[in-house]
Amino acid sequence: MHPELKSKVMTAQEAAALINNGEILGISGFTGAGYPKVLPSALAERAEKLKAEGVDFGISLYTGASIGDECDGVLARAGIMKMRLPYQSHADVRNSINKGQTEYIDMHLSHSARLIRMGFVPKPTLAIVDACEVTPDGKIYLTGCGGNTPSYLQTADRIIIELNTHYADTLIGVHDIFIPELKGNVPIYSAGDKIGKDYVQVDPKKIVAIVEVNLPDSLKAFAALDDDSNAIAGYILEFLAHERKMGRLPEDLPYQSGVGNVANAVLGRMAKDPMQAPVALYTEVIQDSIFDILEADKLIVASGASVSYTISGQEKYKANAHAKNWKNKFVLRPQEISNNPEVIRRLGVISMNTALEADIFGHVNSTHVNGSRIMNGIGGSGDFARNCLLGFFMTPSVAKGGKISAIVPMVSHTDHTEHDTMIFVSEQGLADLRGLTPIKRARLIIEKCAHPSYRPLLQEYLDYGLKNSVLHTPHTLDKAFDFHKRLMETGSMGV
Amino acid sequence: MHPELKSKVMTAQEAAALINNGEILGISGFTGAGYPKVLPSALAERAEKLKAEGVDFGISLYTGASIGDECDGVLARAGIMKMRLPYQSHADVRNSINKGQTEYIDMHLSHSARLIRMGFVPKPTLAIVDACEVTPDGKIYLTGCGGNTPSYLQTADRIIIELNTHYADTLIGVHDIFIPELKGNVPIYSAGDKIGKDYVQVDPKKIVAIVEVNLPDSLKAFAALDDDSNAIAGYILEFLAHERKMGRLPEDLPYQSGVGNVANAVLGRMAKDPMQAPVALYTEVIQDSIFDILEADKLIVASGASVSYTISGQEKYKANAHAKNWKNKFVLRPQEISNNPEVIRRLGVISMNTALEADIFGHVNSTHVNGSRIMNGIGGSGDFARNCLLGFFMTPSVAKGGKISAIVPMVSHTDHTEHDTMIFVSEQGLADLRGLTPIKRARLIIEKCAHPSYRPLLQEYLDYGLKNSVLHTPHTLDKAFDFHKRLMETGSMGV
Repeated sequence: MHPELKSKVMTAQEAAALINNGEILGISGFTGAGYPKVLPSALAERAEKLKAEGVDFGISLYTGASIGDECDGVLARAGIMKMRLPYQSHADVRNSINKGQTEYIDMHLSHSARLIRMGFVPKPTLAIVDACEVTPDGKIYLTGCGGNTPSYLQTADRIIIELNTHYADTLIGVHDIFIPELKGNVPIYSAGDKIGKDYVQVDPKKIVAIVEVNLPDSLKAFAALDDDSNAIAGYILEFLAHERKMGRLPEDLPYQSGVGNVANAVLGRMAKDPMQAPVALYTEVIQDSIFDILEADKLIVASGASVSYTISGQEKYKANAHAKNWKNKFVLRPQEISNNPEVIRRLGVISMNTALEADIFGHVNSTHVNGSRIMNGIGGSGDFARNCLLGFFMTPSVAKGGKISAIVPMVSHTDHTEHDTMIFVSEQGLADLRGLTPIKRARLIIEKCAHPSYRPLLQEYLDYGLKNSVLHTPHTLDKAFDFHKRLMETGSMGV
Repeated sequence: MHPELKSKVMTAQEAAALINNGEILGISGFTGAGYPKVLPSALAERAEKLKAEGVDFGISLYTGASIGDECDGVLARAGIMKMRLPYQSHADVRNSINKGQTEYIDMHLSHSARLIRMGFVPKPTLAIVDACEVTPDGKIYLTGCGGNTPSYLQTADRIIIELNTHYADTLIGVHDIFIPELKGNVPIYSAGDKIGKDYVQVDPKKIVAIVEVNLPDSLKAFAALDDDSNAIAGYILEFLAHERKMGRLPEDLPYQSGVGNVANAVLGRMAKDPMQAPVALYTEVIQDSIFDILEADKLIVASGASVSYTISGQEKYKANAHAKNWKNKFVLRPQEISNNPEVIRRLGVISMNTALEADIFGHVNSTHVNGSRIMNGIGGSGDFARNCLLGFFMTPSVAKGGKISAIVPMVSHTDHTEHDTMIFVSEQGLADLRGLTPIKRARLIIEKCAHPSYRPLLQEYLDYGLKNSVLHTPHTLDKAFDFHKRLMETGSMGV
């Protein structure tokens, strides 16, 4: 650290004392990467003391996306998270939201920074950022995520830095910081184009504290690849190969893949396939599976809002970043750029996202259980599904040992409409819905994607509508949620 | 017409004889402008004769959007429209769809041409186009719409031209024909930018017939401006003025306005307001109200997929096109460009569209009555709502003399999700939903937009959920459609 900045160095406890009641914290962090790791605990301790003194202490928390337990978990359990946006996936946060203790605003990831800069959502009062380096003239080098950090640093009045030496060696230089204007072009014409700077410029007077740490992001290892994920990946790759063979899909389109096992399986299988052409990613989250592609010498470039590596992935990255010049194959961007509708449309992205439930007419629910209980949030799935060239929604056909069918007569909450969904995939098969009427979609989804144990009930619903309802989208409103009602009453959607 | 082309001239009856059973017709036409006017009747007559001979004659009809009765009405009533995409608004077509006699694929207007070029929807076998002029080397000058015509002309094997001299004087030169590749930039950086040619180039060998006509588009005059439309327009303009005053909205953003009375009212009032800055439109349909703006010397440019003028509007245009050089203030584009998500996002469009129904948590239904019966289709509302900088959904709070509430507990079909809707406006007031939780949205929508006669029922639904459901989106699935069920059972959503 530069000597000029030493005067701002303090302990986490001292820095936490600078956080006022009611403050809006705009923090770094996206899918478990690049979030502040020690301030939140110190803040929770401070809140505990203040509560003992009778103060109802609370803060609002703005992030990039989901973050680690050291932040989301700690603040939710402390009961001081009054508001949260734009995405979360921590059980304690979710519970707090569904109990009405935390207000949650579920936004497209590409929308949040712009809405804040425009002033429609209150601006953060204090930015807290996990950073590799900071210079006396206010250049901040971010760690493992672009996220919304540049906009939070720009709009907040005060900044606290967790100066984290853990990633300085591997992550300085991979960022491309570009904050778009309200209107105007985002001049990315190829997944790897760099259009900004590799640091965020702030007024150094706004930096009120620096807390020194040396801590890795803590991401859990993925579950072992299961048969369902493997089957879904297989259908997708088979379909892509077929489309290419038919001359309907160029080889050089970049991929976006959602977070989790199936996305990992798709990329892992691409790496192993000797026929697979080199791959570019224009995605949201870069996960461990990227190393399979790298090691197979098939990576053109990986652009994303974060590198969300497990500990083993981080070790791989660290070991190889310089030796193999891999660092030059990564670009980390603000999430309004990684998920930018303009760029996604222009690049012709092939998009893969997970559905929580889907209905027979082609609508997808990504967020709510039984229409009311929030799970994680829409994340970037809408940014990509709506603007991609080719989009998959993936889900195992059943959950909870068969008690829940992912395919239902009518979704209990719609995040992606029939107009935006293209291809559904479960471990049962793949349904290409493009250019089909609602009735044809329903027949195909029941046949290809539903679990055999739920097909008769779904077919019965469709048949009833075909006899008694209107023949464009033959719903029957007083039976549309029977699956959900049975689940709430009996614990199973089945009969 | 050039002498070389004379050999292809024939009567509508002769041309109709070239249309085979099962043919997929890709025709020009968008919101009642630029559609073929004599071929459809001749085709219906031919089908009648064939039916008398026992032939089950039928065709598929692809258009730009809605078209006149001389085509949609005639073909639907003849019972030969087996399939229809991507948008319709004719009562006879709608009835045929809801009876299951016509298959309908309801698509985003910006998606249709691309899906067809990619081959996911079957390509048209025959293109029929209303044109101002055609040259022996295959340059076709379109009439009042860009629509999907360029892609239909490109992909169909055969072309029939209705050579319509009615508009040649005023519409040659206003088109900007650009067909985007699967990936790549659409280089429009300002609403009036021209990036293509003013004609469509085809292989002249594909032209199998030319039918000479001199016929105007037949658009009905608008209903007299009612109090509701005027009130909605007032709220929108007041809101925009306030946002500008607060420094949150630049003056120079272009507008998109949906079709109908409210859009006309907004533009009409802008024209009359002495404080109104000059206006650019990057819209889908250019309507009569443009003349108010023009006459007030406030039009920068109007870009759209069609000029959908009533007869009186057409006379105004004709009278003034040359005298005032107005022709240079119009650009007509293919609908995948007028509605292009990339361009809409880049230009920062302010978007105004109509909702059929909206729910208290912020979802919008643009298409289905009671979840099943199709009205018109989503049209371009999704293209704009999802990618605009600022978006309004407008609707009178009640319909059918108060028997239907436009605000319901849960929409029976979702076309625009809570993540994409920003501002709701009814004649009761305006609700700015940005940055609000679902519960806060519900309170605001009930207070500001619902009709007073339905507020107690909506509040009762919300209160019940707040007591008995989960506190993120407190729905109650077995009561969610009570409004719709009452409507189906009693003819009114009220109690």
